[in-house]
Amino acid sequence: MNFEKYIRDIPDFPKPGIIFKDITPLLATPEAFREVIDAMAERVKDLDFDTILVPEARGFLFGSALAYKLGKKLVPVRKPGKLPYDVVEVSYSLEYGEAKIQMHKDALSKSEKVLIVDDVLATGGTIKAIETLVKKLEAEVSGVLCLIELSFLNPREKLSEVKVESILVY
Amino acid sequence: MNFEKYIRDIPDFPKPGIIFKDITPLLATPEAFREVIDAMAERVKDLDFDTILVPEARGFLFGSALAYKLGKKLVPVRKPGKLPYDVVEVSYSLEYGEAKIQMHKDALSKSEKVLIVDDVLATGGTIKAIETLVKKLEAEVSGVLCLIELSFLNPREKLSEVKVESILVY
Repeated sequence: MNFEKYIRDIPDFPKPGIIFKDITPLLATPEAFREVIDAMAERVKDLDFDTILVPEARGFLFGSALAYKLGKKLVPVRKPGKLPYDVVEVSYSLEYGEAKIQMHKDALSKSEKVLIVDDVLATGGTIKAIETLVKKLEAEVSGVLCLIELSFLNPREKLSEVKVESILVY
Repeated sequence: MNFEKYIRDIPDFPKPGIIFKDITPLLATPEAFREVIDAMAERVKDLDFDTILVPEARGFLFGSALAYKLGKKLVPVRKPGKLPYDVVEVSYSLEYGEAKIQMHKDALSKSEKVLIVDDVLATGGTIKAIETLVKKLEAEVSGVLCLIELSFLNPREKLSEVKVESILVY
């Protein structure tokens, strides 16, 4: 299936000069959503991991279906003030400013292997920050799986030590 | 399966006096997450709907897996500034303050039947606001499906015209 036709370009969002990849047409097409989740599962079938880590909020949309399909543990990574229990936190700079993310401090065990799942891999800053969170809990990142990779932003430069898979590359 | 044992009570979150229902232990237990999604699907198997509407962000965690399982269209409802295309919007008061939510204006067709899926049904304010958004696009709410219902907040008083299903009732 040609997934690209379900991704809509929105010019000047969230800032002038940026072309945003809108995934809502893909979500709105059940056959396309099913095939994309199946394609994501196929990409990681030989990867050794226990847990899917999903950044708020669009990562939830892909990681949840994937965790359901694969029978993997699902762990949310969230913005401050959202997770109710004790957290570990990291600050980082991202494409459009500064950000903090958190994970529950009991979310991962020592040496647990995680796959990070998100919709768009842009600069890689968010994923790199999640890697730092994972290391704070002495767990390991086995891989990164994204629907869309914006290769012109060179995200793989930041993520040289980990396997990166993406379904669509721009 | 006794899903209750995978829900953790967090006292005084997000405010003193509130006991927050933490769903992360359920997400972290693959068999429990799978069974809860299957139980949610079972609850709506006789309901006529085309589309699953999911409010940001925890609604995404349940609606995505459910849309994947059932082969339904998936539509996100988001906070302002998140959706890139033209939106419809509604303001409403919720348990802990005021809020606005948006949906893409091309997200639903006239007379399309939708199921709203969320993690927790508290006062019903968010769901009622989503109903208003759906009506703005001349679509119809067939039902509401939540993992947890806080019956002591009387959410069904606000939602008397629509079928409400929940897996766990407190």
